Amino acid sequence: MNFIPVNEPLLNGNEKKYLNECIDSGWISSDGHFVKKFEKDFSAHCGQKYGIAVANGSVAIDVAVRALKEKYNWHDDDEVIAPTFTIISSVQSIIYNRLKPVFIECDPITWNIDTSKIESFITPKTRAIMVVHIYGLPTDMQPVFDLAKKYDLKIIEDAAQAHGQTYRDMKCGAMGCVSTFSFYANKHVTTGEGGMILTSDEEIFEKCNYLKNLCFLPDNRFVHNDLGWNFRMSNIQAAVGVAQLERFGEFIKIKKRMGKKYQELLSDIPARLPAAKTDYAENHYWVFGIVLNDDVKFNAKTAMKKLFEKGVGTRPFFYPMHRQPIFEKMNLSDNVSRPVSERLYERGFYLPSGLALTDDQIEIVSKTVREIF
Amino acid sequence: MNFIPVNEPLLNGNEKKYLNECIDSGWISSDGHFVKKFEKDFSAHCGQKYGIAVANGSVAIDVAVRALKEKYNWHDDDEVIAPTFTIISSVQSIIYNRLKPVFIECDPITWNIDTSKIESFITPKTRAIMVVHIYGLPTDMQPVFDLAKKYDLKIIEDAAQAHGQTYRDMKCGAMGCVSTFSFYANKHVTTGEGGMILTSDEEIFEKCNYLKNLCFLPDNRFVHNDLGWNFRMSNIQAAVGVAQLERFGEFIKIKKRMGKKYQELLSDIPARLPAAKTDYAENHYWVFGIVLNDDVKFNAKTAMKKLFEKGVGTRPFFYPMHRQPIFEKMNLSDNVSRPVSERLYERGFYLPSGLALTDDQIEIVSKTVREIF
Repeated sequence: MNFIPVNEPLLNGNEKKYLNECIDSGWISSDGHFVKKFEKDFSAHCGQKYGIAVANGSVAIDVAVRALKEKYNWHDDDEVIAPTFTIISSVQSIIYNRLKPVFIECDPITWNIDTSKIESFITPKTRAIMVVHIYGLPTDMQPVFDLAKKYDLKIIEDAAQAHGQTYRDMKCGAMGCVSTFSFYANKHVTTGEGGMILTSDEEIFEKCNYLKNLCFLPDNRFVHNDLGWNFRMSNIQAAVGVAQLERFGEFIKIKKRMGKKYQELLSDIPARLPAAKTDYAENHYWVFGIVLNDDVKFNAKTAMKKLFEKGVGTRPFFYPMHRQPIFEKMNLSDNVSRPVSERLYERGFYLPSGLALTDDQIEIVSKTVREIF
Repeated sequence: MNFIPVNEPLLNGNEKKYLNECIDSGWISSDGHFVKKFEKDFSAHCGQKYGIAVANGSVAIDVAVRALKEKYNWHDDDEVIAPTFTIISSVQSIIYNRLKPVFIECDPITWNIDTSKIESFITPKTRAIMVVHIYGLPTDMQPVFDLAKKYDLKIIEDAAQAHGQTYRDMKCGAMGCVSTFSFYANKHVTTGEGGMILTSDEEIFEKCNYLKNLCFLPDNRFVHNDLGWNFRMSNIQAAVGVAQLERFGEFIKIKKRMGKKYQELLSDIPARLPAAKTDYAENHYWVFGIVLNDDVKFNAKTAMKKLFEKGVGTRPFFYPMHRQPIFEKMNLSDNVSRPVSERLYERGFYLPSGLALTDDQIEIVSKTVREIF
């Protein structure tokens, strides 16, 4: 049995060539020219002025939130609105910056933050709305723009799962005061581990560069006026990113074709498939998630186990933030149910979705999925 | 004029081959087999049971200190003894873990922590002594072992600058309850950016692996009982490390030969050179530092400027921790002078010391250094 992994990247462009250039030139640290090129090219693709490459997508958010907090003089315990259905990285950056996350239910169709539920959670202490585009379909941004304007809030955009995606005619990654990306191996554009912060605000750009490099001073390296982190991306990571970015358009097309094929092959299974489109975007299918119908007698965990035994890798959906044991311990949980996201966790998981997935493999996966029902 | 940079690594072994293997196999994230191999081989070289590869040397200390604090139930504001003459990374890990650093003067000959000055700073709240082997010469560990035993303190060993070094018959990196390394491009063994935690304590090993991977649970990935970080090392970083490690012995020999050559060529300049050896170790010359004599009319900053203008790259010595503006702001500074380390900063800097430095370049550098006096 050939196991089909949940993700395999496509690395058959200039990745080797550029890596070899790093080795030949001796530039492997964060000072190399691929880092600058990757920052420039990726930010240009996304329509923001500045890019700050970092070690991964999780630390990208840590730096982004801190830069915002400092620029706008937010106080400790000020509040940031965030979706409950997301990865912990989005939310822990709020907490690590001594701000308070406020968890919002998600939409049952798009799985993104339910924008109709945001306003009632806004208080005088709210400073920002963090949106996280989920699994390849953007958040409905217009209501977010409207609320941000009405209440003078900043937008933090976690676009890790929405490379190259657009909301109407706006690019994902260009809609936040700061926007962040991950280039983990399962992302459209990968550097193995890697991340980037985008902004068009020069002050935030400079602050992020300062914070990610241990707050070294250019003219007096080891004297510190602040504490930062070493969150630098290396030139070898960026070399892979530059090669990947050359094929950005092609990769998006591949993902969309895969998603379409899964949609066709799985149209009649007793599960909800991703929304193929909304009135503001077509799905890019970063991953192809399915959510078991109520009449299916087993839950996602069992389904994933069955599929694993039949040679198909899967990954569970996010566990909602308002239910995390760590947040209960930290008194960050309000004990109010958010049933849509709770059900998504119980009933949802995603199928092999990597760029190296072949049509034959999609057919095998789909056939296997049908068999478990 | 050909500028001689302060560091250029040597990457002419199997680096390309292993990087190409990563690309061919598709394993570029932290899950790849080079990560496991690098952890196994490097920890074996250093004589500790377990290695935990991370994104860089700074975050290695963050994870190491947290693992110790949690295992031994240290309280917030408990104290950790640390050298004042070190990089900020060592000390900020103490602060980020809500512990209090206590800064100790350094020795004028070895530039390491002055072990005779530690005991008077030990209080009932002291929990650990952090040693940082400076510039390739180990700390005098016996007094540290004695104090650790007498007061029941843990030893945290920052061995970033002492790859392959020994203290008497003990390996650097094997003397701490936790020991940490950096594989930045200027280190003996480099991965561009990279780091590792070593320990022989299984509980700490498991805790570090858990903390560095966002506290994901193996059987329930997205449910979190704790908050961690994404501090993972990628397979492409580790691939470079594995290739480097194959030449570990050779690299140490090169560095020692370079140091010896500098010692010969600079023996009569009006500056203190590194101690070639002590009664417990021979210098490995991670970098070749010099400290201007008092009768030299200019300070390190001016000397570095003169050398830069003549085509020689240098880097300043560390600015002592007890004088950092950020620690004064945070009330972590006691306003007591530590004149040895203060003088080292004013008068010290280091010369080009990378593994790719040729004998001819060492001669040019030495000639240029002699010219500035």
